[in-house]
Amino acid sequence: MKVSNVIPGSKDKVLFTPGPLTTSQTVKQAMLRDLGSRDFEFIGLVKEIRQKLVEVGQADQSEYTTVIVQGSGTFGLEAVVSSTVPPDGKLLVLINGAYGKRIAKIASILKIDTVKLNCPENTTPNLQEIEDTLQAEGQITNVSVVHCETTTGIVSTIEEIGSIVAKYGARYFVDAMSSFGAVPVNLAKCNVDYLVSSANKCIEGVPGFSFVLCKLSSLEQTAGYARSLSLDLLDQYRGLERNGQFRFTPPTHALVAFRQALAELEAEGGVPGRAERYRRNYETLITGMRRMGFREYLKPEDQGYIITSFLYPDDPNFVFETFYESLNQKGYVIYPGKVSDADCFRIGNIGRIFESDVKALLAAIAETIQEMGVKLEPGRD
Amino acid sequence: MKVSNVIPGSKDKVLFTPGPLTTSQTVKQAMLRDLGSRDFEFIGLVKEIRQKLVEVGQADQSEYTTVIVQGSGTFGLEAVVSSTVPPDGKLLVLINGAYGKRIAKIASILKIDTVKLNCPENTTPNLQEIEDTLQAEGQITNVSVVHCETTTGIVSTIEEIGSIVAKYGARYFVDAMSSFGAVPVNLAKCNVDYLVSSANKCIEGVPGFSFVLCKLSSLEQTAGYARSLSLDLLDQYRGLERNGQFRFTPPTHALVAFRQALAELEAEGGVPGRAERYRRNYETLITGMRRMGFREYLKPEDQGYIITSFLYPDDPNFVFETFYESLNQKGYVIYPGKVSDADCFRIGNIGRIFESDVKALLAAIAETIQEMGVKLEPGRD
Repeated sequence: MKVSNVIPGSKDKVLFTPGPLTTSQTVKQAMLRDLGSRDFEFIGLVKEIRQKLVEVGQADQSEYTTVIVQGSGTFGLEAVVSSTVPPDGKLLVLINGAYGKRIAKIASILKIDTVKLNCPENTTPNLQEIEDTLQAEGQITNVSVVHCETTTGIVSTIEEIGSIVAKYGARYFVDAMSSFGAVPVNLAKCNVDYLVSSANKCIEGVPGFSFVLCKLSSLEQTAGYARSLSLDLLDQYRGLERNGQFRFTPPTHALVAFRQALAELEAEGGVPGRAERYRRNYETLITGMRRMGFREYLKPEDQGYIITSFLYPDDPNFVFETFYESLNQKGYVIYPGKVSDADCFRIGNIGRIFESDVKALLAAIAETIQEMGVKLEPGRD
Repeated sequence: MKVSNVIPGSKDKVLFTPGPLTTSQTVKQAMLRDLGSRDFEFIGLVKEIRQKLVEVGQADQSEYTTVIVQGSGTFGLEAVVSSTVPPDGKLLVLINGAYGKRIAKIASILKIDTVKLNCPENTTPNLQEIEDTLQAEGQITNVSVVHCETTTGIVSTIEEIGSIVAKYGARYFVDAMSSFGAVPVNLAKCNVDYLVSSANKCIEGVPGFSFVLCKLSSLEQTAGYARSLSLDLLDQYRGLERNGQFRFTPPTHALVAFRQALAELEAEGGVPGRAERYRRNYETLITGMRRMGFREYLKPEDQGYIITSFLYPDDPNFVFETFYESLNQKGYVIYPGKVSDADCFRIGNIGRIFESDVKALLAAIAETIQEMGVKLEPGRD
């Protein structure tokens, strides 16, 4: 077999997905280097990234630290579950979508005693039910919640949940995969012990690692908890603190790109600046989609500006695969749905995309709908 | 804190390390793209990589398959240990260096019943002892060996060991991290069930994932064995086979780079061509080092051409940190030693480096030794 060695003649498609996302050219160009993973230049870069992420979480360096975990976001989630629940601990998993379920699945494989609190995918976890569960189920040591459920795009109130968790003395774990860097969060104010996100989300780096923001006083109490070598959070932290080096080979190129991505986040005005651009993308999108006659799955008040789920139009001419394929050929990648009780597709507002990209997508959608002969009820504005 | 955003004014240092390595400019340039991880172009690329790696292992696509695992090489090792040893299984770990020890450590954290067969770091596992251990210790289900121990550079005879393991009906796991792509291996002839290597070794890609070459008939018998979600080898395989997609976000850029690296391996004449360049690097290195008066840690007959351990010179003026730092400033990155019973440093021969780079390193070493006032016994030639 001859390996293909294609230099593409055209530009990349624009990614309206939950990630990997479209990144800036400068972020990608930062990868045109080979750094030694134990070299002082790389060590300095890793230190800088770790400190900057604590700042993005509006936290103090003496109270919080960043642990970088090789692999995808799920590796970061598993690192937290497997390294921070005590051997005889009990985990409460708040579930309102596929990513909450994934945390419960990880815990089940690790044979961790788990209580699941399910709520419908179009709602956020109910505060009274959380409190009741913590009261009824004795000895819950850890509680997890998903900040922005990528399943639907719904955003939970992590500060209120954090207060309840703190009241019961449990450790609080926030999966902020799709929100961190775009939805402001104050780690200390939210009583967060562990927050996970990944390189290729709202910081707009390339995929290759996840990161865990950890409350130091909590992390330091987890000695002996880890159920894995690769995903041992405390050991990874101690390695990075000892000599600034990773225990195992880090994705050096993805990390160099991430430093550049952080500089570009800063240049955009930090989290508020980025939130503003994503919100504009979101508003342009829903205005245009509603005008065409599409309807969102969630109520507007529950809907974040990260990713939006749209219901399939009520017309047999609408076939998602055809719709997807046709947009793809026009240069726009959208995402299938993941809601269990409704037929949806998803459009992301994140990554290095701007209002003009969203408008171009809207034009392509209008054209595709017409080509497919799909009739829509002309919508609200 | 302001994130630094440095565009380096000078070229990168040359990496004479066990990885991450110096890669070609074209491999890095392949990363100047953003591909959707569920897009058909990316799916095709992953399929191509998986098939090509089976070919590099001289194996048949109907008998072997490739499972890509996000994270570093150690993640691939842990995926094999945690997914292929039965719940009541027993693992025999052959140890002649730090990487064999690491496999035993993984097994210990996973609470897997383990037998360790240690041999000195300057020897390869003794075939008779392996056979005796398999006979004495009942019910060994899995055996692991490190092909090229990066601790020293020593290369074990994986074919002979494989015959013995097969005779006793155990599964055979080869850690070929530092050798795959540069030392020819025939998976079926060596009776390999699982072989692990990583992107940023002799295939000369960038770091971000490892890969496991699996004998299909063995892998398919491992249902229910996995002790992790992220590192579940069979589930990862089934995901890739189902729709060509990863279960969790893959490092898209590192994979695009790897496809280019495989094309460059092919252009160099495949494994034999690459082996020839590395061997030339190695011979140039040891000839030059011996001439200066350095001595290798291993006997020449045990020494592979991947990485070489040199003993510290017998002169108090030699301080490794100064030596390392001075070479670093001259643009050459070498590696500290890892042998437990001797003071060594290591020089790698792998990556996109050529005889001319090795000669330049030798000149820098000669200069540094003189600067440090280290006296060496003029050596053999």
